[in-house]
This record gives sequence, structure tokens and C-alpha cells, in this order.
Amino acid sequence: MSQFIVIEGLEGAGKSTVQGHVVAWLEARGLSVMRTREPGGTPLAEKMRGLVKEVHEEPLTMEAELLLMYAARVQLVKNRIQPALAADTWVVGDRHDWSSLAYQGGGRGIDIALIRQIKQAVLGDFAPDLILYLDIDPAQGLERARIRGELDRIEQEQLGFFERTRAGYLQLAQNDPHCEVIDASQSEAEVKAAVLACLERRLCTLG
Amino acid sequence: MSQFIVIEGLEGAGKSTVQGHVVAWLEARGLSVMRTREPGGTPLAEKMRGLVKEVHEEPLTMEAELLLMYAARVQLVKNRIQPALAADTWVVGDRHDWSSLAYQGGGRGIDIALIRQIKQAVLGDFAPDLILYLDIDPAQGLERARIRGELDRIEQEQLGFFERTRAGYLQLAQNDPHCEVIDASQSEAEVKAAVLACLERRLCTLG
Repeated sequence: MSQFIVIEGLEGAGKSTVQGHVVAWLEARGLSVMRTREPGGTPLAEKMRGLVKEVHEEPLTMEAELLLMYAARVQLVKNRIQPALAADTWVVGDRHDWSSLAYQGGGRGIDIALIRQIKQAVLGDFAPDLILYLDIDPAQGLERARIRGELDRIEQEQLGFFERTRAGYLQLAQNDPHCEVIDASQSEAEVKAAVLACLERRLCTLG
Repeated sequence: MSQFIVIEGLEGAGKSTVQGHVVAWLEARGLSVMRTREPGGTPLAEKMRGLVKEVHEEPLTMEAELLLMYAARVQLVKNRIQPALAADTWVVGDRHDWSSLAYQGGGRGIDIALIRQIKQAVLGDFAPDLILYLDIDPAQGLERARIRGELDRIEQEQLGFFERTRAGYLQLAQNDPHCEVIDASQSEAEVKAAVLACLERRLCTLG
């Protein structure tokens, strides 16, 4: 049965590179694989992503930001992820629900219980089968993101915001048996080796 | 102290006309008045309105529709309505929270408790001081709306949807002392007279 694997982590943690490793590993086993990224991943969800990511003259309230994230997520889950899983396609996501819990909860300080309420209300018990959390020091991650190009509205936050977000991620990781923490401060080769070892261990019965 | 007055009702009930009567009545008393319409009313909220109102190739899930409505509402309340009320400006709104309860709850069948949870999560106890609910038979209202021009995505729903929405409105009206029900099947002059009488009765201490 196909699974939903999610890569989580701060800016510059190396999520899209790791996503590529996971997709290649699955495809090498003859499996059908779909990539997603959040927020976004469907035409309507990408429009919602635009509202969240762009810098606007009107301040985007943190409550509206949170609701837009979940609106985009519902579109992606119902219109693409669940149909793919039902058709035995594996789904490898760049970000999912933990991003809201870590960024809006940890980073912005919105009550985590409230975020979980909204999640439960619109997505029920839907959740990834495996989460690879790429842990990195925010200063190191942001430096990598800065080299990559211009920073968007969220990436322009202060370091303290990302430190709170990282703390949020670590707390989630501690309490979830579906999560593997990968030390993303290592070299790219080391991160890749850690990811592949983790996939072997978690999914080895696939042959 | 300024108040937040909301006009609610189905398509073709005459909300914007009544909004005009209320604004004129308040202005004639020398009060500062601001109009709003929902979803929308700020640059970002209008973009969210576009996502909700337009017909898209990708189906908009009812959960995303609900979240977009509240995202737009939060933007409007925090960035325009609350600042106006704080500056002693009266606010007269074309639709507000009851539209979500009646359309998404009554019409689409989303659990009302769940909608209230989302509302409470992002807006707390914020609520109108007075709601004028314009009650009309959906067939009569839609006929008026049809004459007015092309119907949007929501207005293209079947009659049963609007009948459930009306039932949702009537149930809300029954249980809220802040609400006045106006029979909107009457002539324009009769509706206007009923609205003005209601304003006199409710707000007469304004002089």
C-alpha cells in the first residue's frame, strides 16, 4: 500500500534535495511516485500560496495566514494527495501540517491546540505515514536560503522567529513515532546517507 | 458608542438597498459611517473573495471555501471594522458571520459546531450589535438576482441549497436577541418602512 512521506524543516535545511532522494529511492523500486509542495500544489492552492508568500501593503493577519495555509492544504489533500494514495501512488511532500504547527504555532505563538482544532475540523485524522524532519540551526539555514536568492515574506522574519519555529519542530518530533530527525547541518552526502538508511529501516519490507 | 450593524439574507433579498437605507439613517443623525461587504472589503480579502466566487476548473472543496471565508473575514474585522469602531465610526455590513453559518452550515451541511469553533478560534467573541435578516423565499430572491445579471459560482447552486440556507438563517434568527427579521417579500417601500421602524426602536436613544 502506498504511503505519504513528508519532508519538514526550516528554510535552507535542504528539503527539496532530500525530496529528490526519497523520490529516486522509491522509483528505483518500481513504485509510482508523486511530489507535492506546500502551501500550493494545485492551481487554487498555488493562488492561496501567493497570498501567503507575497509582501502586501495590507498586513496579512496571523489568523488569516493560518486559515489560508489550511485552505491550501485541504485543496491539495482532497484533490491530489488522497486520490493518488487511493490509486497506489506514493506521495512525497515538501512540507505539510507540521509547518503550520511549527511556524504559526511555535514561530508566531498561535495556540497549538487551536491549530490542531482547525486541522481536525477540515482534515480529520489524515496524517503522513513518515515525516523526515531536517534539523538545522536557523542561522545556518537562512544563510543557505540567502545565497539561493531573494527572501519571501515569511523568510524575512527575525532569527528569533525561526528559533521558536525550530523549537516547535523539535517538540513535535519528540512525541511522534512517525518522525525521523535528520541532522541537516551535515554535508550533503552525509544527509543523503542518513535519509537512505532511514528509508531502508522504515520501508525495507518493500523489497 | 458606535455599533456594527449587519444586513443578512439570500441572493435577491435586497441587502445592498437596505444597507443604503441604514447608512442614510445614521448619516442623517450626523454619525460617521463605513460600509463593508463580505467576503471582501480589503485588498487581500477581495482576492480571497475572487477565489470563492469565481468558477474554477479545479473544484473548491467546501472546507477550503469555509476557511477562505473566515480568512477574508479576519482581514476585514482586524484591518477595517475594529479600527473604525475604535474611532467611533459606525459600520454597516452587507453579510458577516451568519452567512457562513447559513450557507456553509445550512446549505452545504458542514457541522455548525465546527464552524463556530473556527469562528471562535480566529475572531473570539466579536459579533454584530444588530443583525437585520431579510427573509425571502429563495425562488423569489433568485429570480430577482437572475434579472440583475449573471450568477456566480455560489448563486448557481440548486434551489434546495438555498432552502437549506434560509432554514439556517431562520434558526439563527430565532435564537439571537440581536436580530430583527424583516419580511423581504414585501414591496421596496414596505421593506424600507420596516427597516426604519426597526432602527428607531433599536437605536432611538441616539436622538
